[in-house]
Amino acid sequence: MKLHGYWRSTTSYRVRIALAMKGIEVEHVPVNLVAGDQRAEDYVALNPGQGVPTLITDEGAVLTQSMAILDWLETVYPTPALLPEDPVERAHVRAAALVIASDVHPVNNLRVTARLKAMGHSQDEATEWMNDWMARGFTAYQALVRPDTDFSFGDAPGLADICLIPQLYNAHRWGCDLTPFARLTEIEARCLALPAFAAARPEAQADAT
Amino acid sequence: MKLHGYWRSTTSYRVRIALAMKGIEVEHVPVNLVAGDQRAEDYVALNPGQGVPTLITDEGAVLTQSMAILDWLETVYPTPALLPEDPVERAHVRAAALVIASDVHPVNNLRVTARLKAMGHSQDEATEWMNDWMARGFTAYQALVRPDTDFSFGDAPGLADICLIPQLYNAHRWGCDLTPFARLTEIEARCLALPAFAAARPEAQADAT
Repeated sequence: MKLHGYWRSTTSYRVRIALAMKGIEVEHVPVNLVAGDQRAEDYVALNPGQGVPTLITDEGAVLTQSMAILDWLETVYPTPALLPEDPVERAHVRAAALVIASDVHPVNNLRVTARLKAMGHSQDEATEWMNDWMARGFTAYQALVRPDTDFSFGDAPGLADICLIPQLYNAHRWGCDLTPFARLTEIEARCLALPAFAAARPEAQADAT
Repeated sequence: MKLHGYWRSTTSYRVRIALAMKGIEVEHVPVNLVAGDQRAEDYVALNPGQGVPTLITDEGAVLTQSMAILDWLETVYPTPALLPEDPVERAHVRAAALVIASDVHPVNNLRVTARLKAMGHSQDEATEWMNDWMARGFTAYQALVRPDTDFSFGDAPGLADICLIPQLYNAHRWGCDLTPFARLTEIEARCLALPAFAAARPEAQADAT
């Protein structure tokens, strides 16, 4: 399998964590979002949304959108499970994951902050924008997870944690005030102590600069 | 079941379509997003993300995030299926759905355009912003779906169509140029001719003004 991704992309980071948790080896193909690799004709043919990641399976299937890739991985490589069996519990884990994947990340995407700057806003204003959406999202996430488990929903990390940890990487990067989110930074510390999360970290990638 | 939603919300519209397709009757509870009902203490206790929709199951479970609700509905009420059985085909349908649900809708959410206006932008600039993200998303969506089926991925509507049709409602509302997206407006016409889609339309809701 090949994973086209970018070291700092939180959506690539999500998929790297899941691959490592499930013990799947992949070839990493860097897509430099800052240099505009995602707009190259060959890449757009694979990923018309011009985003990362793109996973190419051993059979040559082209899979896009990180949340769809994670669902495919969960179906084809079910161990360890990223989602509980019970439908309501699954829906609760998915909802927390989607607070990050739908309410926070898309609004803070590189192309969105680039458009803000093209509309005359400074980097400081773009940073304030990102931190505002993160604070709102982390508030919701913290209200949705269990109050007293090692990870967001139990004794093992799952889909919600896989979305949370990359977003917290961005929060540190942009100076988001995490004081109100002690529950989340505790979960983060437990996750990053695990080999799968450590190996997936942006700084551990070959294309990190 | 009770569905807390708003007539014009595209995420509420998605869930209404799926409920109607699966023949599930629900009580609709209006949450007036323009009046700020989503920030009321009672509602935030149900939906900490302050979004719509929220589904309350017959057992009293509280489900948030439209894409998680749709997955729950698909698991508990599998007929008619919104997703194909084959894992790769499922991933392709999910990816197209997520182009709308992750790349377009969140960036055009009411709270995002409200924040743009608070940063000094006019309604015209907010409209241009929305139409830009829609055009980019529809371009990707059109490249991902099949070229010659009645609906996005086959002879029957599914999860991708359920996300597309509400976004096209918004596209018409804000004057997005749909000339390059004839494949999508053809799918739209076929969907809206079906009773489930027609019943779920914003204009058909009791809280429509």
